[in-house]
Amino acid sequence: MRKIADSTVRRLSLYLRFLEDFEGQGIATVSSDLLATRGGTTSAQVRKDLSFFGSFGKRGLGYAVPELAVKLRDILGLDREYLVTVIGAGNIGEALVRFKGFEKRGFKVISIYDDDETKIGQTRGNLTVRNHTLLEQDLHDRPVDIAIIVTPWTAAQELADRLVAAGVRAILNFAPVQLKTRDDVLVKNVNLALELEALSYGLRNS
Amino acid sequence: MRKIADSTVRRLSLYLRFLEDFEGQGIATVSSDLLATRGGTTSAQVRKDLSFFGSFGKRGLGYAVPELAVKLRDILGLDREYLVTVIGAGNIGEALVRFKGFEKRGFKVISIYDDDETKIGQTRGNLTVRNHTLLEQDLHDRPVDIAIIVTPWTAAQELADRLVAAGVRAILNFAPVQLKTRDDVLVKNVNLALELEALSYGLRNS
Repeated sequence: MRKIADSTVRRLSLYLRFLEDFEGQGIATVSSDLLATRGGTTSAQVRKDLSFFGSFGKRGLGYAVPELAVKLRDILGLDREYLVTVIGAGNIGEALVRFKGFEKRGFKVISIYDDDETKIGQTRGNLTVRNHTLLEQDLHDRPVDIAIIVTPWTAAQELADRLVAAGVRAILNFAPVQLKTRDDVLVKNVNLALELEALSYGLRNS
Repeated sequence: MRKIADSTVRRLSLYLRFLEDFEGQGIATVSSDLLATRGGTTSAQVRKDLSFFGSFGKRGLGYAVPELAVKLRDILGLDREYLVTVIGAGNIGEALVRFKGFEKRGFKVISIYDDDETKIGQTRGNLTVRNHTLLEQDLHDRPVDIAIIVTPWTAAQELADRLVAAGVRAILNFAPVQLKTRDDVLVKNVNLALELEALSYGLRNS
């Protein structure tokens, strides 16, 4: 499959959410205009995004909602379950374990780790915080697809190295540091404080 | 001030973190090479990023750590406090209220709202969840700089409209929907499920 841009993948994810909402309401077809309105884009962009993956729309009728949803789930790799581990049992780590939005999309958090003796053994959601020293053995026994790093930035690179060495190929990084990994490892970054700083920069300079 | 790119602002935030870490260790000067290594970029990029804002470095000596940190805080608008409200008292909303990383950077969460009767009156961190119907009066009495929307996507646009009407000029949006706002309102998006879907897309197509 042709490589598509991150921004396109993001819009496909948004379209899928709207389609699922329409499905829930029993709506059979949807226009590119309506998808565009919901996704904050243009109907031309919607048609272009979806044309990458074949022809779904019927001129004048719009897109068949269930079929397009199935196709998007397939494209996004959402027709299977992904096992996820969370490294770092602070507030954000706990929220991630408890976040129902993940499991609904097929992302199943199966473990959470920390190096803080006071946190190890505590409960987060329905999981018990495990000692990070068990990481390699656990990943050997039950590999995960995705690791989420929610540690202080000083610990993040070393953990990423350990995760990659243990076979993890996709990382969602919340630590404010640019992780260095092999080219075949996927890394996405989420940094809440950095997003707020982009806003404070904007407020300062607007 | 010249408009600089989001990606540059993001790197400035990262440089500032490293500088503060160096400050804590009593390190007086830092090379562009070291900042580059930490920020996952090149020393040429570091010099270019910082050259936007005047001359800080001394050839052969590197950057003076405390001076550059002060200057970056000034550029990023971090030399003041920002009042923040959180709309949505679910797991992520709670984590945001409790997240110590925000207050450390001057982002002070002063209130949290929900429309769920079972959540209103409950405690989140050191705050009590307030009824969303109080939003307008509260914002009139004590304006906030930034609102964080952590609601289901179906509620997000209406809340954004209410926040903007009540004077909020910066929104951090966690809901998976593209918010439509006036041009003078800053919106940044964080979507955790979408980031995971970008990873599942990558795993599927790698």
